[in-house]
Amino acid sequence: MPELIEGNAVIGQSGGPTAVINQSLVGVVEKLREFGAGRGSPIKKILGMRHAVRGLTQDDLFDFTDTPRQTLDLLAQTPSACLGSTRDKPDAAYCQRIFEACRKHDIRYFFYIGGNDSSDTCRIVNELSNEAGHELRCFHIPKTVDNDLVISDHTPGFGSAARFVAKASMADFMDNISLPGIKINVIMGRHAGFLTAASALARRSDRASSTDGPQLIYLPEVAFDTERFAHEVAEIYDRKGRCHIAVSEGIQDKDGTPIGAKLIKNAQTDAHGNVQLSGSGALGDQLAELLKEKLTPKGGKPVRVRADTLGYMQRCFPDASPVDQLEARGAGHHAAQLAAEGELDGSVAILRTGKPGPDEVYGVRYERIELSDVAAKTKHMPPEFIKGTSDVSEAFMHYARPLVGPLPEFERLP
Amino acid sequence: MPELIEGNAVIGQSGGPTAVINQSLVGVVEKLREFGAGRGSPIKKILGMRHAVRGLTQDDLFDFTDTPRQTLDLLAQTPSACLGSTRDKPDAAYCQRIFEACRKHDIRYFFYIGGNDSSDTCRIVNELSNEAGHELRCFHIPKTVDNDLVISDHTPGFGSAARFVAKASMADFMDNISLPGIKINVIMGRHAGFLTAASALARRSDRASSTDGPQLIYLPEVAFDTERFAHEVAEIYDRKGRCHIAVSEGIQDKDGTPIGAKLIKNAQTDAHGNVQLSGSGALGDQLAELLKEKLTPKGGKPVRVRADTLGYMQRCFPDASPVDQLEARGAGHHAAQLAAEGELDGSVAILRTGKPGPDEVYGVRYERIELSDVAAKTKHMPPEFIKGTSDVSEAFMHYARPLVGPLPEFERLP
Repeated sequence: MPELIEGNAVIGQSGGPTAVINQSLVGVVEKLREFGAGRGSPIKKILGMRHAVRGLTQDDLFDFTDTPRQTLDLLAQTPSACLGSTRDKPDAAYCQRIFEACRKHDIRYFFYIGGNDSSDTCRIVNELSNEAGHELRCFHIPKTVDNDLVISDHTPGFGSAARFVAKASMADFMDNISLPGIKINVIMGRHAGFLTAASALARRSDRASSTDGPQLIYLPEVAFDTERFAHEVAEIYDRKGRCHIAVSEGIQDKDGTPIGAKLIKNAQTDAHGNVQLSGSGALGDQLAELLKEKLTPKGGKPVRVRADTLGYMQRCFPDASPVDQLEARGAGHHAAQLAAEGELDGSVAILRTGKPGPDEVYGVRYERIELSDVAAKTKHMPPEFIKGTSDVSEAFMHYARPLVGPLPEFERLP
Repeated sequence: MPELIEGNAVIGQSGGPTAVINQSLVGVVEKLREFGAGRGSPIKKILGMRHAVRGLTQDDLFDFTDTPRQTLDLLAQTPSACLGSTRDKPDAAYCQRIFEACRKHDIRYFFYIGGNDSSDTCRIVNELSNEAGHELRCFHIPKTVDNDLVISDHTPGFGSAARFVAKASMADFMDNISLPGIKINVIMGRHAGFLTAASALARRSDRASSTDGPQLIYLPEVAFDTERFAHEVAEIYDRKGRCHIAVSEGIQDKDGTPIGAKLIKNAQTDAHGNVQLSGSGALGDQLAELLKEKLTPKGGKPVRVRADTLGYMQRCFPDASPVDQLEARGAGHHAAQLAAEGELDGSVAILRTGKPGPDEVYGVRYERIELSDVAAKTKHMPPEFIKGTSDVSEAFMHYARPLVGPLPEFERLP
């Protein structure tokens, strides 16, 4: 293993925040300190970039080297990115400014917590900096509520967002039973349906009944067909007088065109080319309108249709999954450990030690993978997690249940 | 006090469900049983109406007389109305069917859990039934997330919904700091701004800083002016590069016309004449569009504006306020006690024993009031709770804090 190089460490948080991204930040800080950072180890200072690479290039840094233990613990349990985030995508000139800043601040260890766009940034900074002769050891710590990073079994941030979606869906299904009609919930997930699929956790697992909502789940992985959608809803509504539906914000038609993006007026696009899907109710409203039109009998009483878009609350609601908190912290620890042990770069993968299923003893291990293995790649729901055109499989339920933590127990009248 | 009359009791849950309406139901059931209902008291059976008066007229009843203790406890902590609800507004013919059902099922005690529309239903059933010679003792138990019932200091259901709004706003404000821009959250409340005002609880109470979000709060009680709105947002956005805004779904223009209702395509109206405001993202989207247009400099980079509509999750999210749970149960107890002690009718008011403020020792007492005192009347935010055109006062904060229960502690970097 190469020797440690003398210099400072810097940590950034990038992309959409989550309920546990600060756990990863604190994980890196405390593990580097355990390895002696700031107290005699070759790693001198532990700095944080405000608003990720943007702050780094503007000398906007926060020094974590001596932050009190109590502050770290409170930060860890605080949702959202305490350093601030960015959606900047550094081009060559921007990268030049990044490693100039690294040189200026004597930075040799670069930790970047984020999704696949962020790991790509990390990879590019790593390559360009080393080419320019400033050795920079770059480590990526995974984060995304979408759960769309390859190799890892799942990604920190997902479990907590899935927990919110499951609890919101549980309660909203009870609401739908109470005041019947058709209810649509639009759930986050640009390309991957994992978070929308998590709405299925709202169904009771301990009962024979399999008729709990959401009865219909629409994922980006299954081409969305308007006619089939209306038909499937009508079939359930005609039978029950109600229907509870989960729809991914990322649903696409058979040509792969996202349906939501077209509906948002003046939809905004970030530097990574991601068109705005969240922060608007347009998709839900459009689908509600469609069902009102198609399902209301001619001259008859309008069918009650309501749509909610779960929105940004999904990623930061202060009720993180305990497993997710631990693993986000653990991923931060592992990245710091890789650096402290002399690795030159890498990303952290979270691998499941058991096989998901009713008898699983849940556990994970952390492993170093190449930055290029995870950068700019997207994982989708595998076929075995999808059931038909509008549901998820039991395999998905086994996969997801341990990640969200215990859910409340609800009772219903017979 | 009049003698008890021999017969059965029936309980209904009406209007929009809440996280604690089942607490009130269980409160009535257990207190009637304590008074010997079903076990020798003149009150024989304790029945529940499925979907409120609709189920009563269709012989769709559930017998709670011997429901096991454990089931009751689980039901009490389950959000939404376990009996089912309705928005039917009984006219004279419907009321006729109601007391025919009461006669048929030997019902002499009628408990109705709901808001001001429901207490009005309760009052009408009471009067018409007594006129028709079937003595029916009718009791109303307050419930509404809007907190708009008169006389009571606050209403069961509000504290839990306010807790959700406060927690969602806390996290969403951290999100807004992390990825700056303008964020609008649309919050429930048809005529009263209490729930939207509760977003202010997201601000740290223990810090000198008073710049926490939401920086702007728009209530139905203050006429909404589009120009002033854009101006106020611009003032904060120009200074901070971000702005966090809470808007009531019930905001009205200076003529009292609700702004949201006009925006929902094919908005639906219930039997009480309430036009649909929830279950659509239209108001938030419209306001976001307006800010994008007004605040983006000519030819400049578009201002990042996002809007979420908190939706039905507000009323049923499974994280009820502990105080709200207790008081919802207590209101049910008090109604049952009124009946068991021989009262002929009444509604339950929740009165605060202390004066809201930093030194308050929080407590409440329950009191019988006349059905007509509360029926079909609406309480608004009093002027002393409102600060300027777009904020709430410290008096409101003192009023609301004890109702939502402890909030999570967040840490921020200096």
